[in-house]
Amino acid sequence: MMRGRELVNRIAAVCLTVLAALSLASPAQAEDGYDLWLRYAPLEGEALERLEAFDPVSVTNSGAYDDPIVRTAVEELHRGLEQLLGRKLSPMGEENGIVWLECKFDDDEVPSGSFGIGSGDVPANREGIQLVGVDPVGCLYGVYALLRELSQGADPFAISTISTPAMPLRMLNHWDNPDGHVERGYAGRSIFDWWHLPERLDQRMIDYARANASIGINAVAVNNVNARAMMLEKRYIEKLARLADAWRPYGIRVFLSARFSAPRDIGGLDTADPLDPRVAAWWQAKADEIYAAIPDFGGFLVKANSEGQPGPQDYGRTHADGANMLAEALRDRGTVIWRAFVYSAEDETDRAKQAYEEFVPLDGQFADNVIVQVKNGPIDFQPREPFHPMFGAMPNTHLMLEAQITKEYLGFASHLAFLAPMWEEVLDADTGHGATVAEVVSPVGMAGVGNTGSDRNWSGSDFDQANWYAFGRLAWDPTLSSEQIAREWAAQTFSREEPFLDAVVPMMLESREAVVDYMTPLGLAHLMATGHHYGPGPWVCDLGRPEWNPCYYHRADAEGIGFDRTVTGSDALSQYAPQVAAEWEDVATIDPAYLLWFHHVAWDHPMPTGRSLWAELVHRYDRGVAKVDEMAEIWTGQQEFVDPQRFRAVTENLAIQQAEARWWRDASIAYWLSLNGLDLPEGVQPPAESLEYYRSLSFPEAPGN
Amino acid sequence: MMRGRELVNRIAAVCLTVLAALSLASPAQAEDGYDLWLRYAPLEGEALERLEAFDPVSVTNSGAYDDPIVRTAVEELHRGLEQLLGRKLSPMGEENGIVWLECKFDDDEVPSGSFGIGSGDVPANREGIQLVGVDPVGCLYGVYALLRELSQGADPFAISTISTPAMPLRMLNHWDNPDGHVERGYAGRSIFDWWHLPERLDQRMIDYARANASIGINAVAVNNVNARAMMLEKRYIEKLARLADAWRPYGIRVFLSARFSAPRDIGGLDTADPLDPRVAAWWQAKADEIYAAIPDFGGFLVKANSEGQPGPQDYGRTHADGANMLAEALRDRGTVIWRAFVYSAEDETDRAKQAYEEFVPLDGQFADNVIVQVKNGPIDFQPREPFHPMFGAMPNTHLMLEAQITKEYLGFASHLAFLAPMWEEVLDADTGHGATVAEVVSPVGMAGVGNTGSDRNWSGSDFDQANWYAFGRLAWDPTLSSEQIAREWAAQTFSREEPFLDAVVPMMLESREAVVDYMTPLGLAHLMATGHHYGPGPWVCDLGRPEWNPCYYHRADAEGIGFDRTVTGSDALSQYAPQVAAEWEDVATIDPAYLLWFHHVAWDHPMPTGRSLWAELVHRYDRGVAKVDEMAEIWTGQQEFVDPQRFRAVTENLAIQQAEARWWRDASIAYWLSLNGLDLPEGVQPPAESLEYYRSLSFPEAPGN
Repeated sequence: MMRGRELVNRIAAVCLTVLAALSLASPAQAEDGYDLWLRYAPLEGEALERLEAFDPVSVTNSGAYDDPIVRTAVEELHRGLEQLLGRKLSPMGEENGIVWLECKFDDDEVPSGSFGIGSGDVPANREGIQLVGVDPVGCLYGVYALLRELSQGADPFAISTISTPAMPLRMLNHWDNPDGHVERGYAGRSIFDWWHLPERLDQRMIDYARANASIGINAVAVNNVNARAMMLEKRYIEKLARLADAWRPYGIRVFLSARFSAPRDIGGLDTADPLDPRVAAWWQAKADEIYAAIPDFGGFLVKANSEGQPGPQDYGRTHADGANMLAEALRDRGTVIWRAFVYSAEDETDRAKQAYEEFVPLDGQFADNVIVQVKNGPIDFQPREPFHPMFGAMPNTHLMLEAQITKEYLGFASHLAFLAPMWEEVLDADTGHGATVAEVVSPVGMAGVGNTGSDRNWSGSDFDQANWYAFGRLAWDPTLSSEQIAREWAAQTFSREEPFLDAVVPMMLESREAVVDYMTPLGLAHLMATGHHYGPGPWVCDLGRPEWNPCYYHRADAEGIGFDRTVTGSDALSQYAPQVAAEWEDVATIDPAYLLWFHHVAWDHPMPTGRSLWAELVHRYDRGVAKVDEMAEIWTGQQEFVDPQRFRAVTENLAIQQAEARWWRDASIAYWLSLNGLDLPEGVQPPAESLEYYRSLSFPEAPGN
Repeated sequence: MMRGRELVNRIAAVCLTVLAALSLASPAQAEDGYDLWLRYAPLEGEALERLEAFDPVSVTNSGAYDDPIVRTAVEELHRGLEQLLGRKLSPMGEENGIVWLECKFDDDEVPSGSFGIGSGDVPANREGIQLVGVDPVGCLYGVYALLRELSQGADPFAISTISTPAMPLRMLNHWDNPDGHVERGYAGRSIFDWWHLPERLDQRMIDYARANASIGINAVAVNNVNARAMMLEKRYIEKLARLADAWRPYGIRVFLSARFSAPRDIGGLDTADPLDPRVAAWWQAKADEIYAAIPDFGGFLVKANSEGQPGPQDYGRTHADGANMLAEALRDRGTVIWRAFVYSAEDETDRAKQAYEEFVPLDGQFADNVIVQVKNGPIDFQPREPFHPMFGAMPNTHLMLEAQITKEYLGFASHLAFLAPMWEEVLDADTGHGATVAEVVSPVGMAGVGNTGSDRNWSGSDFDQANWYAFGRLAWDPTLSSEQIAREWAAQTFSREEPFLDAVVPMMLESREAVVDYMTPLGLAHLMATGHHYGPGPWVCDLGRPEWNPCYYHRADAEGIGFDRTVTGSDALSQYAPQVAAEWEDVATIDPAYLLWFHHVAWDHPMPTGRSLWAELVHRYDRGVAKVDEMAEIWTGQQEFVDPQRFRAVTENLAIQQAEARWWRDASIAYWLSLNGLDLPEGVQPPAESLEYYRSLSFPEAPGN
């Protein structure tokens, strides 16, 4: 016989079991990917018991802060704990809280956002978790860090961490146009509903901010760098202000891509010359107008004199002239982020050299609130590039890294390619100027070109969510390993079961190299089809400007292949520090990964593996295809760990990737064969179709163009 | 003291309470509108008790059918009952089922999809619900009908119905382009992911089919009538086949919009002349190719010789020549749906007359598997039009009604306008040829231009879901009242609470008239801005073709306003049956709703209300604005019944509508004032801004263009 209290406990226990069973029984409906890595899937077993050991569980906000960010932090902690526990928390109160938040202490030395988590005494003389933030946003980041650990099944009392962001600006750049089209977007339409703003704020805008905050992102440029001047008009400032209001409680500042010719386009002036006082006054007034609506407006992101965009060179002025004029308008309030991605019609020597040539001479000339944003490599987000030679070469300029999260050149949203290893590669690169790339940009920041869209899973595929996640995590801490990032992402996103993680994490880590292998092995680059960049087009050689053509980059002929960037060629190597250049200039010792980026070599060039270059090239294509087959097989084995909807989605994407890896491999080999007239190495499968077939394929509706 | 069994029952009862509380406690997360009217929100109180009285509840599939549609029906019934009960059902079996499905009986007289529901004996000599379908899809429709009733709280034993579809073809037309843009789409990007098909099938495609099946829709034309020939190519047929496979278990057949010039565009011929044997052979082969992949392919939808589209007239042939050639290619397998929406550059008399003039002389010439699809009114989906004069005028031709669900002319996705009353108006119209419009089209069908998009709520706003729903319900049964449709939709979509329904249903029913009032009162039409059709543009008069200009339609000047379509004008009235024409030709007796559609009258024309035309016009504008204000107020009172996310979304949309209703009213009045030089009636608010201001507004990024 049971007494009343026992009975109630028993009922509660049964209910919890029922609840857990229900939430586990029907994952198909809920698991459409919208929740990203913030699923907070109910804990089970030991992990659940450990968290349940806190009885009652609740959250105490120690301070009496009426701070919107602290409120966000408390709400998120409640939400996360309730989902992890599979039940409601007790009401919040000092008496029973196990997580004790302290969201402010006076220390200017510690960067904003820093936090510490550890166990210790909490009020009412009980043991609990102390979470201390240097400021409100530190508490918010701390909450997400705590939930990240708990979601992976960590023992609450074993969590002990002090964390500080490595760089102040952790930013997403969106190439979203106001009409909803996303340039190089593969996840549907833009998430920004400019049409209905400011009156209507889509819930997605709040969930987006939440996802960003959870990985430390604190700044967003909301529109395409190929900007429309219209977005500087009053009606768009009103729209932007509503976004800024919605994002402020998540610690996110808004930036706007600004069209340099705006004073002429919408300002009624006949010039946009940065040295014209009327132009400067127009921008000053515009900045004042924006700050009146958005007191914490971040600033302007500018693409100038590149790919047809207007800029200061239109008036014989330098990038510094242009950037500094805008910086003056933003002074003491915001930042000008000026992109170094430039290539102009005049310079035909080597596109890889242009940014360095235009910018390095300006070192020291940029105002203090100007940041120059430099892509990871000197060309354009290829599957592999050497690091950009500007890093380390402008010691008196604030440099920021620009990475591309959306996979313009790595298989759009269907190919599985985890990009953390690529970014790790560039961040860890020693510039030869006394610092790694990570060390060069850490005082400033990192920007990632976003991969979000209207697709329910945000990024067009479930695994592309990992790249958004990884970008944020690396911007917070570039020393994190790709493996750790993959593991924590996969555990939160799919399943915290060890066998799942042990299978999927290695697959993720190898996935980007597979893409390099089947698309552009051995330092090749920019071999994709014209315009949309979908699929192989190494044969393209008839476009208006030389550097638009894949043949410009591979320079293959009957004798050999590769771009000579040594002193006998374009001499782009000389833009690197001497010891870096020395490492790469010897064709015998260079890392084969960069061989054809820097050297033109014969087809029979002997490789370190003992194979000829030709045999090695074919070997790499085959290796890439085989890796994708292996990935598909690994995934097939994960069915028990993943809900049916996402399992099928990933399965179907991998089937696309398998087919397209073969397409890349076959089309590329067919083309090289047409040039070099060689036989295929023994045992190698010939291309499935003729070169003519591959050349005949056309995809006028390819997305993102 | 309780015994074991009692304890278990008690625990179960408590658990259910907990479950119900939980599902009600956190609606904010789930309620993003994706579930449409298929939420199956847990029952409470008496309704729950009544359903629980069946113990155990389960579903029995009486036959041993291994039919995919029956499987869908059984799954849906399980899912629906479990959600309504808030618990799992017992395993399915003959012994314990309360719903007894019988999905086939031999009666060719009864239309496919018919079903009956009633209580009676089910196996094991217990009382239960018998659901009988004439065929598998009849069972499916019966299941949705049963769940619709239960969702509204009906007593299971009181449900007794026999239902038969009024028309065989209940169809959606999508104006979706393969690149993802939706012409006149206001809900984001296309739901069709052509890019990843056939390999990847988005879950949305299944949920879309489910939503359609639940309201009886059985056919979908997947692409824009402004069609790309590319979509007839092999790779698109493969994509389409995957969709057809996914939709077949929901009783939905796919149709394709076909570009008439395809034999020339992609077929390698130098002509698309329908009488050229090579052209006929090309289409025959194309049809064979499609049927090999999709055995139940529905057929082609064609927009020919209209707005620049190619067609048989390009070769001096008639619409019948073109349609019949395609019909021959589809013979015994599918249908050609040929749109009657034509207007050509040559005819400048009256755009409203052209379709009738081109098609009526062809009556009797169309093949038996050709349907001519006629818009509800003679112009183009205006907020109000008289019914199309072709209805009833082609007794020897299969005519089908085309309605527009997407609100191109009724405020896009932000304005609340429930369209059932508009469609009821046309369906109920007596053609004067011995039948109502509903009776004319019932042997054939109805098509609605879809309003779906990638937005999470499918249609861009929660209330626009009601128009999708209403279209399907009216196509099933045109005698349903708008009120019944609104009520069942609102109960399933938001709340089944009486006070909510009593407030919201009347608001819905009056909403379309409000739009007519603030946009185009008293029979005015086509006064919107150019291209995107967003906002007022009655002043536009300089476009290349006369019928592109709003001034063509309103014909206002200092003396009067309106389009004279009587015998003294374009004589479009003569296209109607004599008694209909008689009703409308007398300016004194015509329903004021159609006055300016058929008549040009003086500003001081006395109206039945005693007001002058001018005062009546202004009165209607004001009435429309006031109605929207009232709608916003009504909605404000519904907070307790609606989850926060959707409550806010609707609230924000209504704020947009309030502002834009005023904009339409003010801009229109300002313009009429500039023509007629009259004073505003006493007590009337002058426009907030000058006419110049309204003319200066520009929205280059307006959606759907």
